[in-house]
Amino acid sequence: MVELHNDERLDYLLADETIKIIQSPTVFSFSLDAVLLGHFASIPLKKGSILDLCTGNGVIPLLLSRRTRAHITAVEIQERLFDMASRNVQMNGLQEQVTMIHGDLKAMQPQLGQSNFDVVTCNPPYFRTPAKTEYNKNDYLTIARHEVFCTLEDVVKACKLHVRPGGKVAMVHRPGRLVDIITLFRNYKLEPKRMRLVYPKMGRDANMLLIEGIRDGRADLTILPPLYIYNPDNTYTKEAEEIIYGGI
Amino acid sequence: MVELHNDERLDYLLADETIKIIQSPTVFSFSLDAVLLGHFASIPLKKGSILDLCTGNGVIPLLLSRRTRAHITAVEIQERLFDMASRNVQMNGLQEQVTMIHGDLKAMQPQLGQSNFDVVTCNPPYFRTPAKTEYNKNDYLTIARHEVFCTLEDVVKACKLHVRPGGKVAMVHRPGRLVDIITLFRNYKLEPKRMRLVYPKMGRDANMLLIEGIRDGRADLTILPPLYIYNPDNTYTKEAEEIIYGGI
Repeated sequence: MVELHNDERLDYLLADETIKIIQSPTVFSFSLDAVLLGHFASIPLKKGSILDLCTGNGVIPLLLSRRTRAHITAVEIQERLFDMASRNVQMNGLQEQVTMIHGDLKAMQPQLGQSNFDVVTCNPPYFRTPAKTEYNKNDYLTIARHEVFCTLEDVVKACKLHVRPGGKVAMVHRPGRLVDIITLFRNYKLEPKRMRLVYPKMGRDANMLLIEGIRDGRADLTILPPLYIYNPDNTYTKEAEEIIYGGI
Repeated sequence: MVELHNDERLDYLLADETIKIIQSPTVFSFSLDAVLLGHFASIPLKKGSILDLCTGNGVIPLLLSRRTRAHITAVEIQERLFDMASRNVQMNGLQEQVTMIHGDLKAMQPQLGQSNFDVVTCNPPYFRTPAKTEYNKNDYLTIARHEVFCTLEDVVKACKLHVRPGGKVAMVHRPGRLVDIITLFRNYKLEPKRMRLVYPKMGRDANMLLIEGIRDGRADLTILPPLYIYNPDNTYTKEAEEIIYGGI
């Protein structure tokens, strides 16, 4: 049995109730962003190796475990979240398929080597570090959302270091950072090949972007059809519903 | 009166029949791309100065003349197209507002100075130069569509040279080149601020992109709602119809 801490709750990850996930409103809760990345990323289905950076409570590895038999390694810098992620793996009986590591993505080379993964996924902190320079180590949410422990460049550099040539790197982020992402991906030879923009509903600006690069890939980007989350009447669109409820 | 050459025909630029345009299937015909760029670009309405590079038969200046009283300068490298553009200006009585220049965008500094324009627009050649290295100077269509006389970097460099600090650069291009465009815009300090993707119809990949950068702007991109051209039944969407038929 897995223990829950006081501030934690147990949810189903997807509506089909096959996967349970521990989360906490004060520490870390997974978001739609993670669900969409878990659906968007191109992954090997039967074998191979996947690395998830900034894994939080392990939501991406849990999602990907439904789609693939490949081995998944996941890294989280915050001990409290790593602990939550480890219990999530255990609770879902995924210890064989998923390895959780408590570590800093900027310093994983001794443990993970280089160019060892077919795919790297990442749902990184979205926001540039605010002026505030000191953080309480219990600022879990701030650390997960802001570039406190790693900048976008640190993340892209780590993706490049660990993905094999020809392997794929998939990320979810905000449209406001697209220019940063594209320039960094190209600088680090992760050529963007596939992008999808997510719109809350028709007629609104995009509020999320999904992007996939190929290490040492040839320059040629495909921009997929937009994904709308809500219908005009605020119900989920058919496609969003299929992703959120089906999870694959 | 303006003379038409043998291979030329006289069309209305927009369905409201206010502007006529000379074109030629063997030399240059304007496309939907130009119409969308003319609609997308943020321009000063009452005064100011606009520069259009790679103007072809002058379609963008003609379109913009409907939206603004600002002065428009336009540059075309192919003499045959420059001649067509000049007759288009004359035929529509726009000699006061539009100045056509026969010249190479890579070498306009002596004539246009630098940082003199509020807005620069450009519908550049889309395709990387094919292996073929020699061109017939009558290869009008090849020269307009392929990077024979200017690369994308030449175009972006010229935009940067001629736009004033804080001024805007608007371009239409193919999604496959988005990574090139974004990295070049940023290298030349034309920070991308506004982007719109054009999809032929719902469920299809994007086939055109409209992008606007601000010289020395702060990093923050807005991705506007997608623009669909056709309904599922292949009629124009309401928005496409308004742009194409209204032209503003």
